[in-house]
Amino acid sequence: MEKYNFTNDYSEGAHPNIIKALEKTNLIQQSGYSEDAYTKEAIKSIKKRMNSETSDVHIVSGGTQANLIVISSILKPHEAVVSAATGHINVHEAGAIEATGHKVCTINTEDGKLTPEQIQKVLDIHEDEHMVKPKLVYISNSTEIGTVYTKKELDTLHDFCKAKDLYLYMDGARLGAALESPKSDLKMEDLPKLTDIFYIGGTKNGALLGEAIIINNDKLSEDFRFHIKQKGAMLAKGRVLGIQFLELFKDDLFFEIGKHSNAMAFKISSSLKDLGYDFLGEPSSNQIFPILPNSLITNLLEKYNFYKWSKIDKNYSAVRLVTSWATDELVVDRFIEDIKKLGERNE
Amino acid sequence: MEKYNFTNDYSEGAHPNIIKALEKTNLIQQSGYSEDAYTKEAIKSIKKRMNSETSDVHIVSGGTQANLIVISSILKPHEAVVSAATGHINVHEAGAIEATGHKVCTINTEDGKLTPEQIQKVLDIHEDEHMVKPKLVYISNSTEIGTVYTKKELDTLHDFCKAKDLYLYMDGARLGAALESPKSDLKMEDLPKLTDIFYIGGTKNGALLGEAIIINNDKLSEDFRFHIKQKGAMLAKGRVLGIQFLELFKDDLFFEIGKHSNAMAFKISSSLKDLGYDFLGEPSSNQIFPILPNSLITNLLEKYNFYKWSKIDKNYSAVRLVTSWATDELVVDRFIEDIKKLGERNE
Amino acid sequence: MEKYNFTNDYSEGAHPNIIKALEKTNLIQQSGYSEDAYTKEAIKSIKKRMNSETSDVHIVSGGTQANLIVISSILKPHEAVVSAATGHINVHEAGAIEATGHKVCTINTEDGKLTPEQIQKVLDIHEDEHMVKPKLVYISNSTEIGTVYTKKELDTLHDFCKAKDLYLYMDGARLGAALESPKSDLKMEDLPKLTDIFYIGGTKNGALLGEAIIINNDKLSEDFRFHIKQKGAMLAKGRVLGIQFLELFKDDLFFEIGKHSNAMAFKISSSLKDLGYDFLGEPSSNQIFPILPNSLITNLLEKYNFYKWSKIDKNYSAVRLVTSWATDELVVDRFIEDIKKLGERNE
Amino acid sequence: MEKYNFTNDYSEGAHPNIIKALEKTNLIQQSGYSEDAYTKEAIKSIKKRMNSETSDVHIVSGGTQANLIVISSILKPHEAVVSAATGHINVHEAGAIEATGHKVCTINTEDGKLTPEQIQKVLDIHEDEHMVKPKLVYISNSTEIGTVYTKKELDTLHDFCKAKDLYLYMDGARLGAALESPKSDLKMEDLPKLTDIFYIGGTKNGALLGEAIIINNDKLSEDFRFHIKQKGAMLAKGRVLGIQFLELFKDDLFFEIGKHSNAMAFKISSSLKDLGYDFLGEPSSNQIFPILPNSLITNLLEKYNFYKWSKIDKNYSAVRLVTSWATDELVVDRFIEDIKKLGERNE
Repeated sequence: MEKYNFTNDYSEGAHPNIIKALEKTNLIQQSGYSEDAYTKEAIKSIKKRMNSETSDVHIVSGGTQANLIVISSILKPHEAVVSAATGHINVHEAGAIEATGHKVCTINTEDGKLTPEQIQKVLDIHEDEHMVKPKLVYISNSTEIGTVYTKKELDTLHDFCKAKDLYLYMDGARLGAALESPKSDLKMEDLPKLTDIFYIGGTKNGALLGEAIIINNDKLSEDFRFHIKQKGAMLAKGRVLGIQFLELFKDDLFFEIGKHSNAMAFKISSSLKDLGYDFLGEPSSNQIFPILPNSLITNLLEKYNFYKWSKIDKNYSAVRLVTSWATDELVVDRFIEDIKKLGERNE
Repeated sequence: MEKYNFTNDYSEGAHPNIIKALEKTNLIQQSGYSEDAYTKEAIKSIKKRMNSETSDVHIVSGGTQANLIVISSILKPHEAVVSAATGHINVHEAGAIEATGHKVCTINTEDGKLTPEQIQKVLDIHEDEHMVKPKLVYISNSTEIGTVYTKKELDTLHDFCKAKDLYLYMDGARLGAALESPKSDLKMEDLPKLTDIFYIGGTKNGALLGEAIIINNDKLSEDFRFHIKQKGAMLAKGRVLGIQFLELFKDDLFFEIGKHSNAMAFKISSSLKDLGYDFLGEPSSNQIFPILPNSLITNLLEKYNFYKWSKIDKNYSAVRLVTSWATDELVVDRFIEDIKKLGERNE
Repeated sequence: MEKYNFTNDYSEGAHPNIIKALEKTNLIQQSGYSEDAYTKEAIKSIKKRMNSETSDVHIVSGGTQANLIVISSILKPHEAVVSAATGHINVHEAGAIEATGHKVCTINTEDGKLTPEQIQKVLDIHEDEHMVKPKLVYISNSTEIGTVYTKKELDTLHDFCKAKDLYLYMDGARLGAALESPKSDLKMEDLPKLTDIFYIGGTKNGALLGEAIIINNDKLSEDFRFHIKQKGAMLAKGRVLGIQFLELFKDDLFFEIGKHSNAMAFKISSSLKDLGYDFLGEPSSNQIFPILPNSLITNLLEKYNFYKWSKIDKNYSAVRLVTSWATDELVVDRFIEDIKKLGERNE
Repeated sequence: MEKYNFTNDYSEGAHPNIIKALEKTNLIQQSGYSEDAYTKEAIKSIKKRMNSETSDVHIVSGGTQANLIVISSILKPHEAVVSAATGHINVHEAGAIEATGHKVCTINTEDGKLTPEQIQKVLDIHEDEHMVKPKLVYISNSTEIGTVYTKKELDTLHDFCKAKDLYLYMDGARLGAALESPKSDLKMEDLPKLTDIFYIGGTKNGALLGEAIIINNDKLSEDFRFHIKQKGAMLAKGRVLGIQFLELFKDDLFFEIGKHSNAMAFKISSSLKDLGYDFLGEPSSNQIFPILPNSLITNLLEKYNFYKWSKIDKNYSAVRLVTSWATDELVVDRFIEDIKKLGERNE
């Protein structure tokens, strides 16, 4: 029997609605390069759901691609982006941002989130033309360690950035889980008002591929399609992206997926809490980081795949468990049962 | 009634086999980032079909993406790529190559193809460190104007490049049609021997998206996945690409598609020849450029979409007609009938 | 005896006034990074001479450096620069502009100069986001082949660029000779009004090194020192540049040098005309391109160095002769005598 | 009276020998672009003094320029440079390295120096193609905080880099002071053996401008002049750089300057030690960082300029004092006297 994967939220294909839509539309001729009817319809749905007619929407294939297009389209050569040290652009994009010419100024954080105080410290040490000029703040929601921003936190960041003439960009690779997190009151319709630009992650929320970039600041919108094209992100059959987002924003499927992912993660985390286990950070979305005995981890890894995150002490390690639209509740139940059984055996 | 599109070869979705395969595999868990079983299997099929076990294969999403990754991974900062002036990288990629730091040295050609003599002239004028150093020759097959390379032509180019210490790279966005062209004896299994690197175009030959980069020179293979990742081209659900190429290389579907596309184009071109019309260049693949009376073009455009390519004289223009895997022979027949009828009416 | 050099205008050191000024100021302590008193004073002199208090002035070391800083500071990633095919940035800067990410769109010209009609053709073919967006027009004055712009020509270009929302940048590596050319009525004080940005070449007009960038458009001025620093062009001892330009703009030395360079070139060209020799283009500044018999060229090269420019026919070639502030009239006279003598011998 | 500057080591012009040499050679015609006789002779002298005939030497204008040319010429797009967080390339070059496309991986250090253990930790966390690939280690000697490497420390680093397939690059902006430091036994002739590439700083050691890049690894030498040209660093009158280094390496002037700078700094530091003052780090070269009472600092700043470095506590701050070839011992004596007097007054 294959081991079940809690390794990430991109182990399966797409939500079945998406596969069906691809099949149904397959033979209908459309214009290329995201000028097809599906993409236009998808953009309309997204804007309506965000209650923001003036936003400008473009769909690209992946998160690193979205990040490098957005950041390089905004910054002048001497301008830099500010990010948490754990930020995806800083760690896991193989230097994609620097490859477009820009420094990433990093901030060490406890929880992967940024505050005005932390950003101000970065501004304070960048005093003249011998240093880069911080101009864009990059945040991820949910963060790379599963935490989420509240509306108040984002409000504060937004006001700070505005006051300091900084752009605010939110990487929403896992925005679905973030917005459906019980730990946050932030809503999709807040984002166009509180960010200059953000993207809605499809790949990790039910699509085969696709991230919708939402531009809420007219200055950043000019010539954006040139940047998409230049970075190799304009698919000839752009319909593939449009069809998927059209499905995701039909009957709030996007949000249902976030809700389900979170529910599966919380089912696991509350059982683990009941069993007395601790966590690296409070479980907030579809990525959770329980601290388990090494012996239990070893045993679990015989039946499940997941990522061993960090060593805690001689006997304990933190692991990362990720759930998705495709996570089967029966498997979750079995996983919890296995933990109970194996946990007892370990004592 | 919708107008029928002869505008390009990416108006429809994917070959039905591909849609079926996506559906069938959808719920099976796989590793991310093109380390899934389908991609591995697809790579095996491609290598087998090319009869080249030592080639290194990577699948990315689109042609501009493939071009910019390949070229920027090979060249040092002062090195340049040599291309026909009509080359896709020179005209239609929004400066993608220059954005990675490299000059495109262009050659004006009659037919979109390069010869050693033409390249030698470029080498001759690049004499010292005040100029860029040409290091890579970029060709497209079929070219942007529908012409194709013969085996002998490619042989000669290959030998020349080897002698001059230049890399040879073939853009195969429309390689399927090129290899199935009655005007060429070049075979897929020749390419690993005659190029340092090339790509097999999926998007314009039946896939939703996907281009398979084939590296036939060990030096160019090192760390290639870093370049894919850095340029935002490594899909989390890389399976999407693998599944498609697995289908394309099952029972030679890839080549059948090329054959069909060409057959449809040739059916049109031979009828037009019979009717006495001329062409911009000899029809060779699935892009043809007949020269038609403007009045006929206007009438045709009421029922069909295609691209008006260039003005020939007061009364005539060249148009571009493109066929694909999805081109229905019944529509082609109707189109020919319409030309006959409309052509008569015009006289 | 050493051969005398007519190869270029940078064979000697600096005008003696400059050497003296370097010596005289040597031990006086000053701030670094071009914030010294000499640079401030030099900038004041330049602005006064241009009658343009609002221009922003920055001095860097060399022409390629000036070009790459200016162009990369202005353009967004997808924007391109338009240049004559003979333009220095296109041919002789080892891909410096492309290395900052931008395409150079070239225009083939007779005389190295650009006209609105030529530029309009470039605009016409750049129609959408699949291509780069031309945004900056680069001209050199004098050009790489010695020609110069008249006031009217520059007026027309300026108006055209303004109407088309293009920036106009003049490379003034040899601006001294251009402004003192008898073929042009253009004056230094016209330039701040007729260009968005230009540079005054010091290296080829009497300085050891140094080019003064003059920004006449506030939008292009913002954060310019960051760009200078980032590209490695901010000298710790920026005084070296300031001291030199202070001397060049004392008592119009800069213009006297241009005048002398031109006079020496014209003395040669008018003698050659008297002798019945033709030229590649009308002699206009300190670079002239006489067409001479190959036998004469061979003989001259025994006593003088100069650049063999291009083959005209079996018996004749064009050569490039360049004069400078340091060209001794006695040597010029001897050179003319030698041509007369050797020319006779050749007949 | 002007305040005397201990702010940096580039407040004056050049060592008088250099000014004399510029004057003496001024009218002699030479080839451009660093192919003049002086540069050739200077390179010969440098190689002889290093006892390394096989090294390849190129002189450019400034330190940031040297750093960005060296690093961008070596690294492939996905490769990164490892540096102390205090490294000049990380802090004070306005993102010059990132502008060429490369990430700077930083290490927090006590003393501005790197050890194999620290670098190993960076290697350990860069495990796959989702991250950059560290390939080049950047060190400065002396460091940005005045410390110096011993021969043994550099030996160890060299062996480590070799074992890990990393290149080792030393920024020698203040190499003269480093090599003459009483705290180090490292010699100029060790450097070609212990580094792949380094540069000898002229600007901060007696030249007007100029840094000599020394390449000790054949692989890094290929086409180096292309990189110099492309980055705008090839001066038409390259003689300016050659003449200066010729003087610096005549009779060991370069080393005498380092010795004098250090002697002046040590005279100050030993007096301060006698007076009971502490230092940020042990004084090792021509940059010292004494910790002084704020009241004393305020008083000193009335007669001298220097940089207030960092706050220590309510009453004390560290300052940076820098000496150079031009530092007058009489001024140093007066400065020490002033400290004594003002220090007493403060008690």
